[in-house]
Amino acid sequence: MKLTHVTIWNEFVHEREEEAIRKVYPNGIHSAIAEMLEKYGIYDISTATLDMPEHGLTDEVLANTDVLIWWGHTAHDKVSDEVAEKVQKRVLEGMGLIVLHSGHYSKPFKRLMGTGCRLKWRVAGDKERVWIVEPGHPIAEGLPEYIELEHEETYGERFDIPAPDELVFISWFSGGEVCRSGCCYRRGRGKIFYFRPGHEEYPTFYREDIIHVIKNAIEWAKPVDSFFPTFGCFEAIEK
Amino acid sequence: MKLTHVTIWNEFVHEREEEAIRKVYPNGIHSAIAEMLEKYGIYDISTATLDMPEHGLTDEVLANTDVLIWWGHTAHDKVSDEVAEKVQKRVLEGMGLIVLHSGHYSKPFKRLMGTGCRLKWRVAGDKERVWIVEPGHPIAEGLPEYIELEHEETYGERFDIPAPDELVFISWFSGGEVCRSGCCYRRGRGKIFYFRPGHEEYPTFYREDIIHVIKNAIEWAKPVDSFFPTFGCFEAIEK
Amino acid sequence: MKLTHVTIWNEFVHEREEEAIRKVYPNGIHSAIAEMLEKYGIYDISTATLDMPEHGLTDEVLANTDVLIWWGHTAHDKVSDEVAEKVQKRVLEGMGLIVLHSGHYSKPFKRLMGTGCRLKWRVAGDKERVWIVEPGHPIAEGLPEYIELEHEETYGERFDIPAPDELVFISWFSGGEVCRSGCCYRRGRGKIFYFRPGHEEYPTFYREDIIHVIKNAIEWAKPVDSFFPTFGCFEAIEK
Amino acid sequence: MKLTHVTIWNEFVHEREEEAIRKVYPNGIHSAIAEMLEKYGIYDISTATLDMPEHGLTDEVLANTDVLIWWGHTAHDKVSDEVAEKVQKRVLEGMGLIVLHSGHYSKPFKRLMGTGCRLKWRVAGDKERVWIVEPGHPIAEGLPEYIELEHEETYGERFDIPAPDELVFISWFSGGEVCRSGCCYRRGRGKIFYFRPGHEEYPTFYREDIIHVIKNAIEWAKPVDSFFPTFGCFEAIEK
Repeated sequence: MKLTHVTIWNEFVHEREEEAIRKVYPNGIHSAIAEMLEKYGIYDISTATLDMPEHGLTDEVLANTDVLIWWGHTAHDKVSDEVAEKVQKRVLEGMGLIVLHSGHYSKPFKRLMGTGCRLKWRVAGDKERVWIVEPGHPIAEGLPEYIELEHEETYGERFDIPAPDELVFISWFSGGEVCRSGCCYRRGRGKIFYFRPGHEEYPTFYREDIIHVIKNAIEWAKPVDSFFPTFGCFEAIEK
Repeated sequence: MKLTHVTIWNEFVHEREEEAIRKVYPNGIHSAIAEMLEKYGIYDISTATLDMPEHGLTDEVLANTDVLIWWGHTAHDKVSDEVAEKVQKRVLEGMGLIVLHSGHYSKPFKRLMGTGCRLKWRVAGDKERVWIVEPGHPIAEGLPEYIELEHEETYGERFDIPAPDELVFISWFSGGEVCRSGCCYRRGRGKIFYFRPGHEEYPTFYREDIIHVIKNAIEWAKPVDSFFPTFGCFEAIEK
Repeated sequence: MKLTHVTIWNEFVHEREEEAIRKVYPNGIHSAIAEMLEKYGIYDISTATLDMPEHGLTDEVLANTDVLIWWGHTAHDKVSDEVAEKVQKRVLEGMGLIVLHSGHYSKPFKRLMGTGCRLKWRVAGDKERVWIVEPGHPIAEGLPEYIELEHEETYGERFDIPAPDELVFISWFSGGEVCRSGCCYRRGRGKIFYFRPGHEEYPTFYREDIIHVIKNAIEWAKPVDSFFPTFGCFEAIEK
Repeated sequence: MKLTHVTIWNEFVHEREEEAIRKVYPNGIHSAIAEMLEKYGIYDISTATLDMPEHGLTDEVLANTDVLIWWGHTAHDKVSDEVAEKVQKRVLEGMGLIVLHSGHYSKPFKRLMGTGCRLKWRVAGDKERVWIVEPGHPIAEGLPEYIELEHEETYGERFDIPAPDELVFISWFSGGEVCRSGCCYRRGRGKIFYFRPGHEEYPTFYREDIIHVIKNAIEWAKPVDSFFPTFGCFEAIEK
């Protein structure tokens, strides 16, 4: 069986600079997600971080990645424009991209969306309830009617994104907000899934249900073996 | 200036059979909405109710209606299939349709959606906060970031509708639910707007903001003066 | 490996009543499609026709069908409303539905779309070129940039359907028309794919590329193993 | 009556450098469009060109523009990144943008789409037929079933854009291609309409029907007077 090549990118800053967060993710958010995904036995998983040369996303790495997972927050502006552009280009070629939580404001996501991608937020330990609004969607496979997270960072609308091609989840927060929290996009030959939960202070990525969503998203986003469009000047087909 | 012809349809049962509801809407929900809309001075407004011949929706009334507003709840099954089909047909011809609250389960709406149109509900005096997620949409004109309703009936997802062509509002409820509460559809030559608030026990339709949404929806949904498609067998244009 | 249960429904009238069409499909369009799909070895295939009791679509058959393929044309009105309603209900429960060619005007499709589903047509041996406009879509897997059909019935816009949730193909015709010819819809827990080619006078369903599209559509449309939403009155989750 | 402020931007290169094109548009494409739009008497129209300081799109000009029309082709790369970014920002704030023909590959459009925006093309005098697929859309107001252009540049799919939020036109070309040729997008608080016809060698912009489409698009794209979302850290509304 052919393994899907997944690369998990994490800026890996909070976990090294803040004791409280290191306690939650001692080896970084990327390692936690990697370990959880390994259990499925269907992925060939690599990780990459901001401090690596080219942030670990060399041409070779990107060329061999089927689905890229992205977590970033405090260091969005430290990601080079060159790497952000390469990620965008690879998505348009067909690579899947899963953007987690604060990655909504990352350079690759903003380039692919074309909008400001800002939202309201508050770190107050609110309860989040992720409602699945499209039960027939492949990303809903195996999920219950909602996923409840006792404490998460709150995100609220207006979330400045293009209307999702498919809106799969909407989150409710105890503080009074809602957020489109599972958003599918098709761009170029690639697919993008934005998934909201995953604040660094909470052990969200150790949850089976959250990882199950990510696994479903990988399956949905992985490349389709189809033609590469030709562009530019071309001869008439009809004479 | 040409007035837009608006017909407000109400089943008008609760208000006559239940004292508590008659106190809120003594002349019926339709009359309350009619009076509120009159103030704009740009509408020619009629009302129609279930107990009228053909439920007040004769061929002539429908032919002269630019936008039909629909409120129904306890007597959906008393609406004749023939009238429901005529309403559907007129929408496909170009008439706008605004479906309010429990009208989600009305015959015309279900016929136009093709789905079950069911949802979760609870009458518990929850607070509702209607978040506007598309500020650039014409139905958002003049609105604040959210509309708060101190007490409303709760509706929750899964709401079994087709994904809206444009999702303008999402509601938050204090009891823990979310609901897609402002949903635009284009069907045939017509437009449909589903708007969630409006339980019969609460004075929701006396609110300026709620009526402003309805007014915006009328402006969005009113017919466009465009061609009527021809269907069926036709000659080749090219030889 | 679990086989996907596919039921191919055909009205099976033209092939029995018209010599010219019997020559093209001696055992009916359904049998031709069934034989072509068998080669993949991943489907458990049944067929059903109009003249069978309940048109071959008993409760048991529908309950055991993962994806239903539908071809009808001259006898749409002979399909009972009861069976049409059952098909609609099963799609909303999660069954996939692939509607072929003149099936655009069938009762189940019209019920699910909510629109008139009419279009322009002409039987004139026009050339059709099916352009794939979404190369990253799973239904585009393995396809070239376009599929060319030397002779097909012409369909033209306005095609009175809801805007597809995903528009995968657009057809060009030598006579001067275009048609949205590969249309994805999500309705209830189910998925629907409309695919345009397949006039009874042409051997379209013997083509590997056309059957490959149908196979891709089956893979896309087959049910997702997810929760069944609960509807109706429910308790507050939050206290 | 309040006039809508329209700014027409043209790179204005072909018309000055090539005799054949100067004959078609002696004062530039922008002037031709401006004169045609003036007749409606509801627009306050300005023009701006590449060779002006800041390409004529100063902060003040952009701030006072309700809808910006964009024609560019041979000098896309001469548009400064700074101006392209300002245009993008103004659209996200609410300004309408109408992108004409070869403007599909302009910097502002590519930034807003997030995709490659490339397509196939051929200058061969093909006939184009622009089919209106959404007769109920405001941009279809007053149009016939199709607009025929005896000679136009051919554009063909795959056109590498996000699936339009609303697809209003699809073009047929005599050489065998189709193209999504009237595409609506909502981005931020703004609206974008891409309209395909308008090759510099043909007198397309002197046609009443083509200008009528542009007028409809202005009416659709002009800003809505709604709230400006607040972003960033915010207090809980619920206590």
